[in-house]
Amino acid sequence: MKNTFGTSVSITLFGESHGPEIGAVIDGLAPGLPVDEAFIAGQLTLRRPAGRIATARQEADAFRIVSGVFEGRTTGSALTILIPNTDTRSGDYQRGPARPGHADYAAFAKYHGFEDYRGGGHFSGRITAALVAAAAVVIPALQAKGILIGTHVARCAGIDDIPFSSDLAADITRLNALPFAVLDSERGQQMREAIESAAAQGDSVGGILETAVLGLPAGVGEPWFDTVESVLSHALFSVPAVKGVEFGDGFALADMTGSQANDPFRMQGGNPYTTTNHNGGVNGGITNGMPLRFRCAVKPTPSIALEQKTINPLTGEETTLAVKGRHDPAIVHRARIVVDSVTALALCDLLALRFGTDWLVLPDA
Amino acid sequence: MKNTFGTSVSITLFGESHGPEIGAVIDGLAPGLPVDEAFIAGQLTLRRPAGRIATARQEADAFRIVSGVFEGRTTGSALTILIPNTDTRSGDYQRGPARPGHADYAAFAKYHGFEDYRGGGHFSGRITAALVAAAAVVIPALQAKGILIGTHVARCAGIDDIPFSSDLAADITRLNALPFAVLDSERGQQMREAIESAAAQGDSVGGILETAVLGLPAGVGEPWFDTVESVLSHALFSVPAVKGVEFGDGFALADMTGSQANDPFRMQGGNPYTTTNHNGGVNGGITNGMPLRFRCAVKPTPSIALEQKTINPLTGEETTLAVKGRHDPAIVHRARIVVDSVTALALCDLLALRFGTDWLVLPDA
Amino acid sequence: MKNTFGTSVSITLFGESHGPEIGAVIDGLAPGLPVDEAFIAGQLTLRRPAGRIATARQEADAFRIVSGVFEGRTTGSALTILIPNTDTRSGDYQRGPARPGHADYAAFAKYHGFEDYRGGGHFSGRITAALVAAAAVVIPALQAKGILIGTHVARCAGIDDIPFSSDLAADITRLNALPFAVLDSERGQQMREAIESAAAQGDSVGGILETAVLGLPAGVGEPWFDTVESVLSHALFSVPAVKGVEFGDGFALADMTGSQANDPFRMQGGNPYTTTNHNGGVNGGITNGMPLRFRCAVKPTPSIALEQKTINPLTGEETTLAVKGRHDPAIVHRARIVVDSVTALALCDLLALRFGTDWLVLPDA
Amino acid sequence: MKNTFGTSVSITLFGESHGPEIGAVIDGLAPGLPVDEAFIAGQLTLRRPAGRIATARQEADAFRIVSGVFEGRTTGSALTILIPNTDTRSGDYQRGPARPGHADYAAFAKYHGFEDYRGGGHFSGRITAALVAAAAVVIPALQAKGILIGTHVARCAGIDDIPFSSDLAADITRLNALPFAVLDSERGQQMREAIESAAAQGDSVGGILETAVLGLPAGVGEPWFDTVESVLSHALFSVPAVKGVEFGDGFALADMTGSQANDPFRMQGGNPYTTTNHNGGVNGGITNGMPLRFRCAVKPTPSIALEQKTINPLTGEETTLAVKGRHDPAIVHRARIVVDSVTALALCDLLALRFGTDWLVLPDA
Repeated sequence: MKNTFGTSVSITLFGESHGPEIGAVIDGLAPGLPVDEAFIAGQLTLRRPAGRIATARQEADAFRIVSGVFEGRTTGSALTILIPNTDTRSGDYQRGPARPGHADYAAFAKYHGFEDYRGGGHFSGRITAALVAAAAVVIPALQAKGILIGTHVARCAGIDDIPFSSDLAADITRLNALPFAVLDSERGQQMREAIESAAAQGDSVGGILETAVLGLPAGVGEPWFDTVESVLSHALFSVPAVKGVEFGDGFALADMTGSQANDPFRMQGGNPYTTTNHNGGVNGGITNGMPLRFRCAVKPTPSIALEQKTINPLTGEETTLAVKGRHDPAIVHRARIVVDSVTALALCDLLALRFGTDWLVLPDA
Repeated sequence: MKNTFGTSVSITLFGESHGPEIGAVIDGLAPGLPVDEAFIAGQLTLRRPAGRIATARQEADAFRIVSGVFEGRTTGSALTILIPNTDTRSGDYQRGPARPGHADYAAFAKYHGFEDYRGGGHFSGRITAALVAAAAVVIPALQAKGILIGTHVARCAGIDDIPFSSDLAADITRLNALPFAVLDSERGQQMREAIESAAAQGDSVGGILETAVLGLPAGVGEPWFDTVESVLSHALFSVPAVKGVEFGDGFALADMTGSQANDPFRMQGGNPYTTTNHNGGVNGGITNGMPLRFRCAVKPTPSIALEQKTINPLTGEETTLAVKGRHDPAIVHRARIVVDSVTALALCDLLALRFGTDWLVLPDA
Repeated sequence: MKNTFGTSVSITLFGESHGPEIGAVIDGLAPGLPVDEAFIAGQLTLRRPAGRIATARQEADAFRIVSGVFEGRTTGSALTILIPNTDTRSGDYQRGPARPGHADYAAFAKYHGFEDYRGGGHFSGRITAALVAAAAVVIPALQAKGILIGTHVARCAGIDDIPFSSDLAADITRLNALPFAVLDSERGQQMREAIESAAAQGDSVGGILETAVLGLPAGVGEPWFDTVESVLSHALFSVPAVKGVEFGDGFALADMTGSQANDPFRMQGGNPYTTTNHNGGVNGGITNGMPLRFRCAVKPTPSIALEQKTINPLTGEETTLAVKGRHDPAIVHRARIVVDSVTALALCDLLALRFGTDWLVLPDA
Repeated sequence: MKNTFGTSVSITLFGESHGPEIGAVIDGLAPGLPVDEAFIAGQLTLRRPAGRIATARQEADAFRIVSGVFEGRTTGSALTILIPNTDTRSGDYQRGPARPGHADYAAFAKYHGFEDYRGGGHFSGRITAALVAAAAVVIPALQAKGILIGTHVARCAGIDDIPFSSDLAADITRLNALPFAVLDSERGQQMREAIESAAAQGDSVGGILETAVLGLPAGVGEPWFDTVESVLSHALFSVPAVKGVEFGDGFALADMTGSQANDPFRMQGGNPYTTTNHNGGVNGGITNGMPLRFRCAVKPTPSIALEQKTINPLTGEETTLAVKGRHDPAIVHRARIVVDSVTALALCDLLALRFGTDWLVLPDA
């Protein structure tokens, strides 16, 4: 389905970096969800580049909702959010050599040269603004149901953040207000310095995002093929620069024994829980009621000022390129809110499939 | 879509570990593909448990194709493969305590106790036999188009295999004939000994699978949401015990700089290629014509003989459990062919979407 | 999705007229639905040819359920029903001239001659047995929720049955037990005589099926594209020989004025109802709580003994053909249960999308 | 999928009658299709109400394309068309009694009163403007491939147009330029007078649309469930006011014998054709290379000035209603271009599924 994700609740994404507008359509939402435009704006601010560690491109992100909302609440029909592109300087991005690490050449091969190449076109991280805006419609509704999503920069430029504490709810609440989401502000400061240092060298750095989701009921996920891990990874690998996804202890599980990796069950207040959570809240592709935990590897921004060898896809000539224009020396901290957003959308889809389209508001509405 | 994966080419999977038959329906296949039953049987043999490092359960895997094939070739209609379950000893698997690390409790929560709990029911690795058989219909057709898929046990019980060589085609051909797929047979022997050692202690081990795909054209993948990474990871996370998926250098990319991670383009014989392949053949979610490379983390088999703490989901009582019955001290080597299989199916879907349902045979048929 | 229909509740259909087995997979069913094998057998009997007005082909229809049922109830996983083809006389159906009115030539063009042409192969009405068996799993569950589906032969060979009475529930109950479903048995007898008369002349006849569905709540249907009429017609036009579908007064509405066609609303016992039902229980693609009413045109059986002009698709030669083998002089009365079946499946899908996968059993389970 | 139709080529529709903008996203288009904005404007003009026989609401339909087009051609990414609602007089459409024949009450039941009720909201025929604009992107591309779609008002207010002539291509070309599409202009004049007469009485009339499609190759359609009839009817029943769809002779086939209804095959210039076309170009759900023919019943406009009995869904009170505001005394002639549009989109989807996403432009591009 290409630019559409989800079946019960779906999102369709459109737009190009230097086109007139980008946007998203969310369909399958329960009617009656309050739509909080200030919250949407706040989420967009968290995604927006800011400060010395980000691209100088400044977008007002003045979104507008043109369908699916009436008198401040969702109608249950397709909801469309549009965001104009105001600060496009296409002169920076003429068709030229393929930027290494970017989709330029792959898109050229796929679209026979008809793609809008300006600023990465449809494959620009710019498009995530529409994703974030759309997800901002459902995140408060999930919160009202007790489902909290939070992500921190667990590692950046080789520097580790501290792990989530035992009070996940507090951690998540705190992270969701931070522009640079780390649990330890000092380490965050070191990361930012490392990013600035890379920028000063015309280079860029990557990192790892770690996400926790609280409040998911046990029993969510549709094996074989729509396991909660399958559906989430499908969404997460759509986020630009994500090159790895692991649930629970992920790749570290490969070196454990079964007796280490299995999470023993106990009872507490009449409910089962596990005393460890190496499996990240998922057994056999279905949630087990424990916090969902996963990590995404985010590669360093491919746009760098250093000279690189490359080709011109139109002419087939070898050349060199030093990417000009505005770009981020790191995107891991900005990708954080995108990860939260696709997580929210993917979970809404699985939950609506299971509990019906009205689930998100009823019976508590 | 739960038990169906794919849109242009789709697979629907059904069956339970101790039910009468398991099976798969593949739809959307090109008409005229030769169906090689000996190859299917061979692929099933590679999946089947064998020797001391595997469960004692022996399945003849006497599959039969009941639709979609006529005079030895696909008809273009839905193709159904059935595999009877012959060696089911249900007495081993009464409803009892939830096995830690398995789907037992999560499935109980989801299906309200109506699930077939015997031997893991629908969530048993047994079901992968149908997946493997179904994929064995398309793998030779992909090979005839020059698309080769191969996977090795890159790591098991803490022991590393050697990396793929520069002659990927030869590596893949050799791996595809091996029951325990490693590039270095001595290290493979060490892995097997480590597996036996874990088994002797009533425990189990995990590992990492590394896959290479040769011959994919540039331009495959449908961003935003059906990137080649999204679609493959969706399929891969459906494979039981897979807890992590990374493309190219994956999580290691998080510690690189952009100048290290970007793969420079050059020309060779009129075609672009990259001099490194840190991105695993994928840029922006679209193939770039280089070999596709990814790795899957496979957790240790959850069924272990050691005593574990758990609960009975029916009664809510805490108890202990030492899993009896037949089980594998490792599944990473058996999961290899399952990974190849879902990879083949996922790629067929993306290729058919792009080139039409007849692509796999025409115009070369 | 070709051989799969539905998203929340889906059915996948496979098999060929003269292959070893036909079958269906239903996915997305609520766990815990009682599965009544005697009811399934009864539904298959209603579909099966019988007596002088039907083909002499006799199928025992000895179905077996190989997945998705445990201890007599659905598990919530994919449910598979298989029906062996026992009475196949392929000698009757060598590749030969294209039978006019059948899929022979169209399938040849589509599948490049690789299709299983024997007895119509995958396009044979035989495959509807699997559809009927699969739907027989959900029809009792719908009934338990108060949703009743009934169809009568409203017209056959130019002879009209009487209309539904005001006691629709009684009509439906009576129809569901009849092998030749008419509301007036005398007119039914006339129809059967007309069918026999056509058969005696080597010819065949068609008819119209009229369906009523009681007990659907208001608010079902997902405009724009998944209106209740869209989804039902999609399913109904998959039934072989159906060439027209109309809802409510259908084509007769084209000649009415708005003041005649609109159904005025009134209140009864606190609930809205309409005093007429020209719109067949659907307004704007959404159910309004009134009985759903629709009609299907069923063309005369294309297999006739009379000589017809045709071609051989392989050679391109013009030739004549008098269809030998066993065939029905009418299928409208047999198509009745197929129409009921696809109606049940389509409604389950829309209802599960709206109310969640557990809806069919909960909260009443 | 609710507001999305199609898999290989899909359309997502959004907006409300009195919201700020309506629009559509088409995805899966081949890259490189020329986009002719004048043609799009022309198609919108054919849909727009005009003259005494239409609503006085005047929309400039000043569409704009905000994504998926670059330098006048499709990019292959999601294409979005937006149309602002400029002439909304919401004062005409306060929440009030449910208009009989409209979705008002059904939508109230479905959306719990959160729907945008103004002017029918999301269920207004107004939304078809976006459908028509979107389809106008692909109709010229289909024409360039030799696929011509044309529809005439075959009947209106009890008055018949003449049938299609033997020169279908000429008929279609002529119809596509007419605002009131009839083959016989005198009968068209009579129809218009009958519409005006109904309007004068505060009433409305319905009619029948007949469509022909030339140039479809044999072999299109994906039985069982995605037959060309299933997919088209799915799309057609999404068009407001369509209450019946029949292919070929449709309901008249019910009264024929097999020897009358079967279309004999002959050869002409090396290609098979049928000497009659009672089956409308479809056998067994697959095109046979003959012109595709189908008819849609369009009910009379439900909005009438005459007083009708109804209820207020909010209060449950019985009341009467004479619909004020601007409305059409007939919509059959305006629905014509909508039928053409959904036909084009549905056929694109089936053709792309079969021939790949690039089919529409390659190899002729």
